[in-house]
Amino acid sequence: MDRLVQARTVKWGDCDPAGILYTPRVFDYITEAVEAWFSHVGGASWTELIAAGQGAPTVHTAVDFRTPMEPGLRLNVSVLLETLGGSSLGFRVLGDGEDGTRYFEGKLVSVAIDFATRRSIPIPPALRARAEAYAAAHGAE
Amino acid sequence: MDRLVQARTVKWGDCDPAGILYTPRVFDYITEAVEAWFSHVGGASWTELIAAGQGAPTVHTAVDFRTPMEPGLRLNVSVLLETLGGSSLGFRVLGDGEDGTRYFEGKLVSVAIDFATRRSIPIPPALRARAEAYAAAHGAE
Amino acid sequence: MDRLVQARTVKWGDCDPAGILYTPRVFDYITEAVEAWFSHVGGASWTELIAAGQGAPTVHTAVDFRTPMEPGLRLNVSVLLETLGGSSLGFRVLGDGEDGTRYFEGKLVSVAIDFATRRSIPIPPALRARAEAYAAAHGAE
Amino acid sequence: MDRLVQARTVKWGDCDPAGILYTPRVFDYITEAVEAWFSHVGGASWTELIAAGQGAPTVHTAVDFRTPMEPGLRLNVSVLLETLGGSSLGFRVLGDGEDGTRYFEGKLVSVAIDFATRRSIPIPPALRARAEAYAAAHGAE
Repeated sequence: MDRLVQARTVKWGDCDPAGILYTPRVFDYITEAVEAWFSHVGGASWTELIAAGQGAPTVHTAVDFRTPMEPGLRLNVSVLLETLGGSSLGFRVLGDGEDGTRYFEGKLVSVAIDFATRRSIPIPPALRARAEAYAAAHGAE
Repeated sequence: MDRLVQARTVKWGDCDPAGILYTPRVFDYITEAVEAWFSHVGGASWTELIAAGQGAPTVHTAVDFRTPMEPGLRLNVSVLLETLGGSSLGFRVLGDGEDGTRYFEGKLVSVAIDFATRRSIPIPPALRARAEAYAAAHGAE
Repeated sequence: MDRLVQARTVKWGDCDPAGILYTPRVFDYITEAVEAWFSHVGGASWTELIAAGQGAPTVHTAVDFRTPMEPGLRLNVSVLLETLGGSSLGFRVLGDGEDGTRYFEGKLVSVAIDFATRRSIPIPPALRARAEAYAAAHGAE
Repeated sequence: MDRLVQARTVKWGDCDPAGILYTPRVFDYITEAVEAWFSHVGGASWTELIAAGQGAPTVHTAVDFRTPMEPGLRLNVSVLLETLGGSSLGFRVLGDGEDGTRYFEGKLVSVAIDFATRRSIPIPPALRARAEAYAAAHGAE
C-alpha cells in the first residue's frame, strides 16, 4: 500500500504581497490531500460518502510552517494516518521539497457522521479496514 | 429602492506578490455582490432558491480592471441590472474608491434554472417584479 | 481599549457541496481578523511593517470547529491576545453567532521578523506596548 | 511547439452548495494556465518578470460556462494565443473533459508593463518571439 503523495507547485496566486504563501492557502493543500486520501485510499470520495448518507467533516486542523514557500516551489504533500478512533481519523500531512526540505507539517481530524443528523457514527467497516491497513503502513514518520 | 452597494476592504490575502489584487479575487467581489442582490433585492437567497427547486447559476462573467488595487483599499461595490431576458439577468458590478476612482467594471449573467433538470426556466414572477423595479431604478450608470 | 470584533457573513462561496463552510475558508476569517488587529490595534498594517523592513508571518495556526456554519450565517469574529513572547504574538480568534453560539475557536501565532533576512527579531517597542495593553484587557475569555 | 495543457481535477472545495463549480474558481484555473504559459512558453515566470522590472497584469478576463462542473471532474485546460498587440497578449483558455466535452471558454488579456511606473511597454523582444511562434501554432481552435 503506497503512501498517498500529491505533487503540486506553489502558485503565484497562493502567495501574498510578502512574496510567500498566504497562511490560509496551506489548508487548501492539506485538505485537498485528505480529500484525495478518501477517494484513492479510503474507498469513497466525499461526494460518494454523502450520496450514502454519511460525511467526514473536519473538526480540527492545524499547521506548523517550517520554511517559507515561494511561487514556483515544487512540493510533495504526503498523508499519514496517525490516530484512528471510534469515529475519528487523525491525519498528519507533510509538505516537503524535492530536496527533502520540510516546508510544513499539518494535522487534520475528520469525524464520520450521519449526514442527515450530523451526529458522529462509528467509522463504516469498509473504510475502517482500509484506514487500519494504511495506518499500519503509514502511521508515523 | 436603493442601489445595492457593498463596502469592502481589499485584504492582504487578496493580493499577490506584485502587491496588487490577484485577478481571480475580483470575482469573489463581483459574485458576492450579486449574491447579496438576490438576498436583499431579489427576495430569495441562493439557498432559498435551491430549497424551492430552482437556481440561478452564472453562465457568463467578465471584468475590466481600470486601476490597480492594493491591500487596505476601501471599495464600494455596486450592482446595476442592465438586461432582463426571459430567463436571464445581466448584472453590471462596479468597484469604486471612496474618492470616486473607478477600479473595476464587471459583468455577470445569471440564468434561472430548474435545479433538478438544470434547464432554464422563465424568471419566477416575484423575482421578475423585483428585478424590473430595480432595473428601472438602477439599469445603467 | 475595545476588543477587536469583525462582523461577517458566511458567503455561499465559502461553503462546499455538503452545504457547510469548507475547512480552509475559516482561516480566511481568522487571518483577516489578525490582519485587522495589526492595522487597528498594533499600529501598523502588514504593508506598513514590510515598508519598515519587518514582517509578522504566521508560524502556527489551528482551529476547532464547534458548530457547522451555513451560508448567510452572521458571525462576530473576535481577537484575544493570549501569549506575548520575545518575538511572538499568540492570538486566539473566536467565531460566535449573534445568539452567542460558538462556531469556531482558532489560534494563530505570528513572529516578528526582519524582512530581508527572515530572522526573528524582538517585537518592536511600539507594537509591544500596544500588544501588552491589549493582552491586559483581552488576554483570555 | 506543443500546446500548453494543464490536467487538473475539480476539487470538492472549488464547488459550492449547489454541488457545482463556484463561479470565481474558474478564474483560478484560467489564471494558473496563463501563469504556466509565461513560465513554460514565454520564457520567464511572473516572478522573473518582476525581478527584471517588468510585469504582465491582467486588464480583462471573461468566461462562458458551457457545462456544469462537479467535484472529481478531470479537465484539460489548454491555452491559445489569439491576439498579440504592441503591449498586449490575448489568451483564450479552454476547459475540456477527457471525453471532449467543452466545460468553459475563457479569455484573459495581459499587458506588458514597467513594474515601477505601471505603464505599458512594448512586449520585450524575447517574449514577443516566443509569443509569435506560439500564436502561429496555437492561435485559434
